[in-house]
Amino acid sequence: MRILYHLPLSPYARKVRAVLAEKRLPFELRVEKVWERRPEYLELNPACTVPTLVEDNGLVIPDSAVICEYLEETYPDTGLLGRGPSERVETRRLVKWFDEKFAAEVTRNLLWEKTMKQALRLGAPDASALRAGYANLKQHLMYIGWLAEHRRWLGGANLSLADFAAAAMLSSIDFIGDVDWSLSPPAKEWYARMKSRPCFRSVLTDRVNGASPPPHYADLDF
Amino acid sequence: MRILYHLPLSPYARKVRAVLAEKRLPFELRVEKVWERRPEYLELNPACTVPTLVEDNGLVIPDSAVICEYLEETYPDTGLLGRGPSERVETRRLVKWFDEKFAAEVTRNLLWEKTMKQALRLGAPDASALRAGYANLKQHLMYIGWLAEHRRWLGGANLSLADFAAAAMLSSIDFIGDVDWSLSPPAKEWYARMKSRPCFRSVLTDRVNGASPPPHYADLDF
Repeated sequence: MRILYHLPLSPYARKVRAVLAEKRLPFELRVEKVWERRPEYLELNPACTVPTLVEDNGLVIPDSAVICEYLEETYPDTGLLGRGPSERVETRRLVKWFDEKFAAEVTRNLLWEKTMKQALRLGAPDASALRAGYANLKQHLMYIGWLAEHRRWLGGANLSLADFAAAAMLSSIDFIGDVDWSLSPPAKEWYARMKSRPCFRSVLTDRVNGASPPPHYADLDF
Repeated sequence: MRILYHLPLSPYARKVRAVLAEKRLPFELRVEKVWERRPEYLELNPACTVPTLVEDNGLVIPDSAVICEYLEETYPDTGLLGRGPSERVETRRLVKWFDEKFAAEVTRNLLWEKTMKQALRLGAPDASALRAGYANLKQHLMYIGWLAEHRRWLGGANLSLADFAAAAMLSSIDFIGDVDWSLSPPAKEWYARMKSRPCFRSVLTDRVNGASPPPHYADLDF
């Protein structure tokens, strides 16, 4: 059975879980506490990040972006990159936008400060980081709302990796109750559509040791 | 004519310049001072990073990773990603390694502290960042040396984007004289091979306002 090493709140692992489910590729989840730097895991993925995918034939694929490109090339039936060059450029541009820019401006400031930093006993959340995170999240929600108002899906006419990257990032922040969905009704409507997809169910029913998400978190009609 | 917006010391722009030249795709360079956040440039690339490529047909492609995937799909004659799935996974894994891990651990601590931070009048280089940068660079040189000793090119038997990503990062650090090549003879031998490729010549003959590289910088026999 295909194995995905992950952490429950990792947005990158959530993206890959949803993409695998959308492509109907069965897999088994294994939690990898990357901070323990397990030697066997370092051999699979020297960067020691999650996710890492291990295929039935033994092929090891580290990194969510590398995994998604691999899945597109290997299982092209449910294509998530778009058809022509301009669709594919726009999908990949938005994936990078969420994987890097949203992650640095929002996820690092909120999710890291509130969960990982505490779990690793690196001190209390930094107030200026939290302030920056909330201010940046507002801007990002506006941008997502703008995209959702002008296009059927974030990348264009079709569901794409851009939607998965954005929804994965938002779902992790939503788990800690930090998304004020009233800021952008079109972003909320788009996210409700993503939440209602079967591929997102397992991500939304995950629970993390000692932490509960807000009541609306997995509610499709929030 | 195809246009590439760049900054002379941006390793990401250097990677794309070398890849375009390796694929024999002519282009015109335009310097984009991203910190000025020029409205016309923000329309091309809302993340306001370099490089951005604009094709003759008007297609705009931001971000070096997005550009490289686009170039592979659109101009596959000189393929730089590898053939089978495992070669392509390894190439992309290493590109991410250099674009993200090397960048965060080395480039951010040395190139940013010594050039951009000063240019933007954000203060003197931080001594602890420089120390971390040099320590991390040593580890990265060892890893590059290990790869170069065990494979013909960094990703495997064939020249690939992994070599371009690594050489681009190193060339920017080498410009400010921070690479101690004596630390790893196999890394030095591999880099000499990269420097001798015609596609790297224009990158190495670049000069930056008021700054000169060390004497060995463009020397093929350093």
